[in-house]
Amino acid sequence: MPDELDALLTESKRASRSLGVAPAEQRHAAIEAIADAIEDAADAILAANADDLERGRASGLDAGLLDRLLLDASRIAGLAAAARALAVLPDPIGEVLRERTLPNGLELTEVRVPFGVIGVIYEARPNVTVDLACIALGSGNAVVLRGGSAAELTNAVLVEAMQGAIARAGLPRASVQTIDRFGRDGAGRLMRARGLIDLLVPRGSAALIERVVTESTVPVIETGAGVVHAFVDRAAHLPMALDIVLNAKTQRTSVCNSLETVLVHRDVADTAVPAIALALQQAGVTIHADAELPGVADPEPLREGGWSTEHLSMDIAIGVVDDVDAAIEHVNRYGTHHTDTIVTDDADAAARFLAEVDSAVVMHNASTRFTDGGEFGFGAEVGISTQKSHARGPMGLPELTSSKWIVRGTGQVRA
Amino acid sequence: MPDELDALLTESKRASRSLGVAPAEQRHAAIEAIADAIEDAADAILAANADDLERGRASGLDAGLLDRLLLDASRIAGLAAAARALAVLPDPIGEVLRERTLPNGLELTEVRVPFGVIGVIYEARPNVTVDLACIALGSGNAVVLRGGSAAELTNAVLVEAMQGAIARAGLPRASVQTIDRFGRDGAGRLMRARGLIDLLVPRGSAALIERVVTESTVPVIETGAGVVHAFVDRAAHLPMALDIVLNAKTQRTSVCNSLETVLVHRDVADTAVPAIALALQQAGVTIHADAELPGVADPEPLREGGWSTEHLSMDIAIGVVDDVDAAIEHVNRYGTHHTDTIVTDDADAAARFLAEVDSAVVMHNASTRFTDGGEFGFGAEVGISTQKSHARGPMGLPELTSSKWIVRGTGQVRA
Repeated sequence: MPDELDALLTESKRASRSLGVAPAEQRHAAIEAIADAIEDAADAILAANADDLERGRASGLDAGLLDRLLLDASRIAGLAAAARALAVLPDPIGEVLRERTLPNGLELTEVRVPFGVIGVIYEARPNVTVDLACIALGSGNAVVLRGGSAAELTNAVLVEAMQGAIARAGLPRASVQTIDRFGRDGAGRLMRARGLIDLLVPRGSAALIERVVTESTVPVIETGAGVVHAFVDRAAHLPMALDIVLNAKTQRTSVCNSLETVLVHRDVADTAVPAIALALQQAGVTIHADAELPGVADPEPLREGGWSTEHLSMDIAIGVVDDVDAAIEHVNRYGTHHTDTIVTDDADAAARFLAEVDSAVVMHNASTRFTDGGEFGFGAEVGISTQKSHARGPMGLPELTSSKWIVRGTGQVRA
Repeated sequence: MPDELDALLTESKRASRSLGVAPAEQRHAAIEAIADAIEDAADAILAANADDLERGRASGLDAGLLDRLLLDASRIAGLAAAARALAVLPDPIGEVLRERTLPNGLELTEVRVPFGVIGVIYEARPNVTVDLACIALGSGNAVVLRGGSAAELTNAVLVEAMQGAIARAGLPRASVQTIDRFGRDGAGRLMRARGLIDLLVPRGSAALIERVVTESTVPVIETGAGVVHAFVDRAAHLPMALDIVLNAKTQRTSVCNSLETVLVHRDVADTAVPAIALALQQAGVTIHADAELPGVADPEPLREGGWSTEHLSMDIAIGVVDDVDAAIEHVNRYGTHHTDTIVTDDADAAARFLAEVDSAVVMHNASTRFTDGGEFGFGAEVGISTQKSHARGPMGLPELTSSKWIVRGTGQVRA
């Protein structure tokens, strides 16, 4: 089996060489063909998905996981529509990043190139299978997919349909491959496939990401959890603070850019905390704190993770801090460097928060829910990078590219 | 001891916060002060270096290593001059990389920011200690240095002198720290210091780099070995091919951008191989091959590493290939994705080689010795990245930076 998997990865590498020189029109045609193929294969996809769902129910998957696994006619139409949206994004490949001519006449050009082969390890969400295949084609990369075993049958039918479409567009079937059938061993092998996998992106639980970061010997982009903060400064406009806190917490709770902690400047705590807490409680949010809060009767204690808890639910932690320094210190200490916002009318406080909070996205007077590839105008996103190497924040097509230096001479040698 | 090391790394992290908001003028002043301090401390530096050299001779270090360890008055002057050259490079911090205004009025700006704390693990070369400290200051980063133990006494005096200089410029002493005194444990801890070390750069032997890539759980930039190729196409101008091959092989053999393999197109092998081999042999280069070569009596066999051997000496491997496809295939298979050059007057062959060879730097009619931060106009370099993530090719100041998204609103929330 390891030999079979190595052979598969070698095929991906070979496919990536063709993709790397394929024109954008051909890669976009392949994405369009994928959209058509998914619609055409709807019956087979739904049948496989029904089998996965039955296995899932038998093995006791919870309702949330089953819902993420579920495909129906409307979701299949959504997959095809998402693919078509990707087929019209600008092609990042070949973009000139830097250029210069040296005194000796050498012409240096740094151009954007595909990575080669991207590996993605993710959980049982069939829509991710299609999104990632199309994002890879859009950025000139081959992709090796390791989805959750709960979606194995659905993914197999999806990948088969996509491979047919890619072949019809004249590109290698191996541009998109799944290694679900190799089970957990496959994921481990992917993490150590130096020379065959050029970049590995884990998407999913903190435990999955931790395992990949720890075990992987190929370059990884960490798409981390979001312990996201709003700091309500003493110069905050209170109605704006209420809007932003309420939106960031309650508009969708299960996502990484939703709000987990509100910090309030001590000077305005007596008025702001009761107002914020009341608005949240009226929306059904449970307040957690590690001390008494003005106007909040019996807040719940902080969860086990303390100030570093990512609730992903209708829970929020509220704390009072002495000043903007203390807020920055708190965010940098307990946060996950994802997204943090300050609400204030004080330009100096805003400037300090934006400069000193060490997060992928820092905001002034805006809801943290805007940290999203779609909202940023990237089309689809691969994930939101919370690391500082290679990509930071929402990752679109350019974030799945590398670069190379092209040097053109007329026989220059070094003195 | 682990506690003491953690405390040290925490100090580095704290220093990085000050550096991250320090203006370029102040960081440049610190670099100037370092140049002065190294000249002022010359006697103490030379005394410590003499002790290191004595230890090195006693422990049997070879002449090459002892030479790299050696400092003398002229080399100290060189260190100070290199620092002063870095103090006048443009500051990368704050550069706007992308900006856009969303339909809802949100203003998005992606700006260049320092990584935070950079760890570097390198071998016993005191000049690297000073270079890296100055490069880190120039890019707004704190740096934690783990040099080779053979240079421990020299590095200690250098770092002490640099810390004094940095403090005189009003920046934290902990902006530059050494962990040499923690021995090999220190390197291991650096590799796992998630949250304290933002980027780790190994510089040195293939074994060192392999260890770091395998063990590290923090993001790494691999500065790999150079199995560097020249392909002499059938449309090559032979005198140019001779110039380039001779320069790339013999101008300096111990460096990663020196030539290790020449591939010659079969159609011109009968004339080109004898001419190239003769020129190389006259320069004192030993020819290695895995088959008979036209005009070369008894070539040496390939070294143990076969076509993937990095000689770093007056040795070269010569092979004959059928065409440009075979050359590209050979380079991608046996090379290290560092630098490869094609010599040809055929624009189509050049275009294919430049597009399809998967290396950090691809060249047409130029010597591979130009892959160098200084030659590229970057000032000093941290190393040459042979990976595709984050940085590729020579790494200057911009390659030691990350980015962050700044979002400015007027109370926008997500619908």
